[in-house]
Amino acid sequence: MGVTLQNLAAGLDTVWVLMAAALVWFMEAGFAALEAGFIRSKNSINIIMKVFMDCTVGLIGYWAVGFALMYGADRMGLFGSSGFLFNGTGIAPLATRVAPYAFWLFQAAFAVAVATIVSGAVAERMKFGPYIVFSFLATAVIYPVAGHWVWGQGGWLNRLGMLDFAGSAVVHAAGGWASLAAVLVLGPRTGKYNKDGSANVMPGHNIPLAALGAFILWVGWFGFNPGSALSGLDLNIARIAVTTNLAAAAGGTMGTLFTLWRYGKPDPSMIINGALAGLVAITAGAAYVGPGSAVIIGACAGVLVVLGVEFFDRVKADDPVGAIAVHGVCGSFGTIAVGLFAEKGGLLFGGGIRQLLIQLLGLTVVSVWAFAGSFTVFSILKKTVGIRVSVAEETEGMDISEHGVGAYNELVAQGHFPLHLGGELNLTSHALISKAE
Amino acid sequence: MGVTLQNLAAGLDTVWVLMAAALVWFMEAGFAALEAGFIRSKNSINIIMKVFMDCTVGLIGYWAVGFALMYGADRMGLFGSSGFLFNGTGIAPLATRVAPYAFWLFQAAFAVAVATIVSGAVAERMKFGPYIVFSFLATAVIYPVAGHWVWGQGGWLNRLGMLDFAGSAVVHAAGGWASLAAVLVLGPRTGKYNKDGSANVMPGHNIPLAALGAFILWVGWFGFNPGSALSGLDLNIARIAVTTNLAAAAGGTMGTLFTLWRYGKPDPSMIINGALAGLVAITAGAAYVGPGSAVIIGACAGVLVVLGVEFFDRVKADDPVGAIAVHGVCGSFGTIAVGLFAEKGGLLFGGGIRQLLIQLLGLTVVSVWAFAGSFTVFSILKKTVGIRVSVAEETEGMDISEHGVGAYNELVAQGHFPLHLGGELNLTSHALISKAE
Amino acid sequence: MGVTLQNLAAGLDTVWVLMAAALVWFMEAGFAALEAGFIRSKNSINIIMKVFMDCTVGLIGYWAVGFALMYGADRMGLFGSSGFLFNGTGIAPLATRVAPYAFWLFQAAFAVAVATIVSGAVAERMKFGPYIVFSFLATAVIYPVAGHWVWGQGGWLNRLGMLDFAGSAVVHAAGGWASLAAVLVLGPRTGKYNKDGSANVMPGHNIPLAALGAFILWVGWFGFNPGSALSGLDLNIARIAVTTNLAAAAGGTMGTLFTLWRYGKPDPSMIINGALAGLVAITAGAAYVGPGSAVIIGACAGVLVVLGVEFFDRVKADDPVGAIAVHGVCGSFGTIAVGLFAEKGGLLFGGGIRQLLIQLLGLTVVSVWAFAGSFTVFSILKKTVGIRVSVAEETEGMDISEHGVGAYNELVAQGHFPLHLGGELNLTSHALISKAE
Repeated sequence: MGVTLQNLAAGLDTVWVLMAAALVWFMEAGFAALEAGFIRSKNSINIIMKVFMDCTVGLIGYWAVGFALMYGADRMGLFGSSGFLFNGTGIAPLATRVAPYAFWLFQAAFAVAVATIVSGAVAERMKFGPYIVFSFLATAVIYPVAGHWVWGQGGWLNRLGMLDFAGSAVVHAAGGWASLAAVLVLGPRTGKYNKDGSANVMPGHNIPLAALGAFILWVGWFGFNPGSALSGLDLNIARIAVTTNLAAAAGGTMGTLFTLWRYGKPDPSMIINGALAGLVAITAGAAYVGPGSAVIIGACAGVLVVLGVEFFDRVKADDPVGAIAVHGVCGSFGTIAVGLFAEKGGLLFGGGIRQLLIQLLGLTVVSVWAFAGSFTVFSILKKTVGIRVSVAEETEGMDISEHGVGAYNELVAQGHFPLHLGGELNLTSHALISKAE
Repeated sequence: MGVTLQNLAAGLDTVWVLMAAALVWFMEAGFAALEAGFIRSKNSINIIMKVFMDCTVGLIGYWAVGFALMYGADRMGLFGSSGFLFNGTGIAPLATRVAPYAFWLFQAAFAVAVATIVSGAVAERMKFGPYIVFSFLATAVIYPVAGHWVWGQGGWLNRLGMLDFAGSAVVHAAGGWASLAAVLVLGPRTGKYNKDGSANVMPGHNIPLAALGAFILWVGWFGFNPGSALSGLDLNIARIAVTTNLAAAAGGTMGTLFTLWRYGKPDPSMIINGALAGLVAITAGAAYVGPGSAVIIGACAGVLVVLGVEFFDRVKADDPVGAIAVHGVCGSFGTIAVGLFAEKGGLLFGGGIRQLLIQLLGLTVVSVWAFAGSFTVFSILKKTVGIRVSVAEETEGMDISEHGVGAYNELVAQGHFPLHLGGELNLTSHALISKAE
Repeated sequence: MGVTLQNLAAGLDTVWVLMAAALVWFMEAGFAALEAGFIRSKNSINIIMKVFMDCTVGLIGYWAVGFALMYGADRMGLFGSSGFLFNGTGIAPLATRVAPYAFWLFQAAFAVAVATIVSGAVAERMKFGPYIVFSFLATAVIYPVAGHWVWGQGGWLNRLGMLDFAGSAVVHAAGGWASLAAVLVLGPRTGKYNKDGSANVMPGHNIPLAALGAFILWVGWFGFNPGSALSGLDLNIARIAVTTNLAAAAGGTMGTLFTLWRYGKPDPSMIINGALAGLVAITAGAAYVGPGSAVIIGACAGVLVVLGVEFFDRVKADDPVGAIAVHGVCGSFGTIAVGLFAEKGGLLFGGGIRQLLIQLLGLTVVSVWAFAGSFTVFSILKKTVGIRVSVAEETEGMDISEHGVGAYNELVAQGHFPLHLGGELNLTSHALISKAE
């Protein structure tokens, strides 16, 4: 290929987006580690495998159907209609120099993330098979339609002027409220709530693993937000990266201080979730707000996530990893915050109330869509194949009941993980197959 | 440096390859985590340290000798002969704008990966010292010579037209069949197979760690395949990234469905290995096949890896992590698949049988070379210094016998890991040194 | 934005620095995993949360104050004085095309790393609250002032010609000697040293986690050193990446061989620390020395780190993770090594003794500053709020005493980690809050 200014620009933008896509894809490792660490060991393989399903079946779903609904030729502002089984062509013209395949990969990593948000909320009691069906529908239909509205060429919220830079609404609020719907249909873990309304602690089994997951998610956001500019020539990517990191820092700081004040000790899961809350909240406005505003947005999110986790626990929406609070509450807050803090159009910056109202409208519509879509899918699955493992399986742990192996086969847990090496363990593993022969 | 079109192009290509090299290097963390998680805790430090040896001694080996044999001035199409102790010059002209040092680093990360593939297969019984010797010879001689044939300027398979874009044959089949040779010389783990021919389960000790390793490997492939284009101006890097990811997704999907059908439950190690199998298989053709073909290739690999693991277990080639099936079988399949699915020259795309025959020839030669080279090295080591720890050491675990420390010093495993804090433990650690003084 | 040569150059440089910043930021995950794995499980949440404090409070500190002191308008060569609460403007002119926000983020990740180095040395006995204060002061004042001297426009060591490419002195020696000061004020862990002067082994609780951290740190150095060139057009980034990796490889190799010779077995923590020592040592000279010199520098560091760990243990400077030896000793050695091995100006390359003397002067000044600053802060904190948990809390473990949760709530450790699920455990977690209501 000849070296021209245009070729170089397209190449630089494509390199930038591919590297950003790798970082966003890496977030799946972060989700898996975070979620596994925050739940009990007996279900940790199962949740990691569900994240794997998002990355495999979910990715296929976005390739076969989802991307076409999101970025295909617009129909009435509601959905796209071309580019199924994407082969590099056939979608609506992109307002970017990026190679279409790179654009696809970056978007696909976002779609997979939406499904994965839900995996955490339904942990420790949802069946594996129906989860696969949900994951496919989430990346193939639920997310892409909302995505078309806000980001698609001709999408009605896009035309209305809604600002959601990298997806506080489209990705996080959608994922968070879909999680709430799932949890409501599914019900809480057995033993989580007592008859008197009080809740029992089910502490995570591996907090270092969860923290490592949080670090990975944070690093992934170096791609998630700045990558959404879709151009390495756009020097705003640098400011976007800075607002993103400052919001995370402020969220983590407030998660520390607020739990220190409220509980007497800085709570590790809230420090972690505080930083993630800051990241989620700044995602809509990362390109539109300055660093000072980013600190304020992140700090608010770091408090909101604590209150959110408490609230959903009080109303018995059992969410083992806090996905509803982190993604639903703080994604919603971040979407609204654009209407307040945007340097152009934000209420606090003299822009009047118009952008704020658009944000509220868009957030409401996207949230209702994601909630209703998820509620419908989970309800149908519940009435047909069933979505919940039996109490016996839940007690035994889904690693054994669903996959036939334990996460830490050599370790002894206190009655909760009574694995014995060799012998009576019903392993599906290939080695046992040979044994049977 | 002045800013010209040519400088920009060289800079962009170099940035791209350096970032890809970082991703490929990160795969070593993935290999270490995957292999450690899939084996018993008592040998997990030992295997991670072997991966460290690939990264240290192996890297020195490729710097001192290997790169020169691979990319130095060609001798009869068989090996390179200049650029030892590489200092940025003296190799054959490169068909790339990339800075030679960046090219070296990217290639070096590949060489280290070949050695690391073998580390998994010989886990839990191979001595540390002889492994270091093998690792050095693998990166210094065995891999580079095969690499020269296929990728070197003037390499005879290169001139013949063999297509192995990022190394399904050169890296993965070579590593996989070298693993088979190693396992045959070394013999199975004590207690793995019974006298009646049946096999015993030796379940991995930390599946979450293994899964995290798999995610890291997958992310590393964002560099492995697209980076092999060696240019950020080449917009094909985007399609390469997409075919790579679709094959992984299809492999993981089939690993799930096939084990669900065959064993009654989706097997976690096979879901993981299915995705890796898809990645390995698409590596040869990532740049030559379309997304639909990539899905088919990945799906086939996801089935083949399950059958492969079963087969090698049945013939008592004890491979604790499935390296032979993932890399040997699926790397071979992927090499052949280019002859079938390549848009230019593939049998199924009207290209006739010529490319397929070249692929079969090249695959055979590379595989035989790697198998024979590894078999020779392991056999000589066996007859001289010995390659296997004693049964007593194997029972105790190599972390203690080879390194004097345990992986999880505080944990109690059921009889298999009888560590007691303090006191009688024979630690080599510096602290004990001071005690002795 | 129009596509011009200048825009492309600025874009490429900014993309390069942002990706490098992401890699350096990822090092925080590496530090957290390495440090947590090398200490006892009962303090592992606490140390990871301290790293989180560096990433949150520390990042805010560098944004609000530190960057201004480091890169603001110079005052007498001693400190900068503009650009507080950095908003993209107001600092001294940068000798780079990189977008100022990208430059800030890259520098901020370095500042956070300095604080994190200290977190490892004070592990297992330092209070959480005072650590936050130190972390803030480290990124806001201690590091930035030294940074201004060596890297700031007008900094007096910069004008003198000190060469510290990516911070063997400014980051690592400063962090290492600040660690020594902290340890001296804080005292050793209870039970570490016996009355007869001998030391007790306190083995790390999770060596695979520590090793994973080391791999992540190594990958992070792909950004740390080459990113410091601040330009993707500068093809020297490729050689910098190669010298960096060769030094790491040589360090790990010598860590293996030297402990094999000295202790009879290759020590895992020293293999890991040997590679890190090589990385630390090459950081000053990565751009100034050739690959052969890099191997020598790394090899020396791999021996020095072993001797350093032994020495500081002998003088009862209790450093659970070896931070003083890795960063203090090898950072100092690396700074000096530039005066010996630099291709331009190095004593061994015919450059005379001038550069060596400048390096020694700069190293001394930076080290004394960091040591004295840290000593002062820790001493004031000790006399006011106290810096050390009680012996009872230290025995119980800081995860429980400081945060109210355990790292591995389901696991049984031998008397050292007597956690019981449910019931009497004093959890701060939100779930228990609901219970109390």
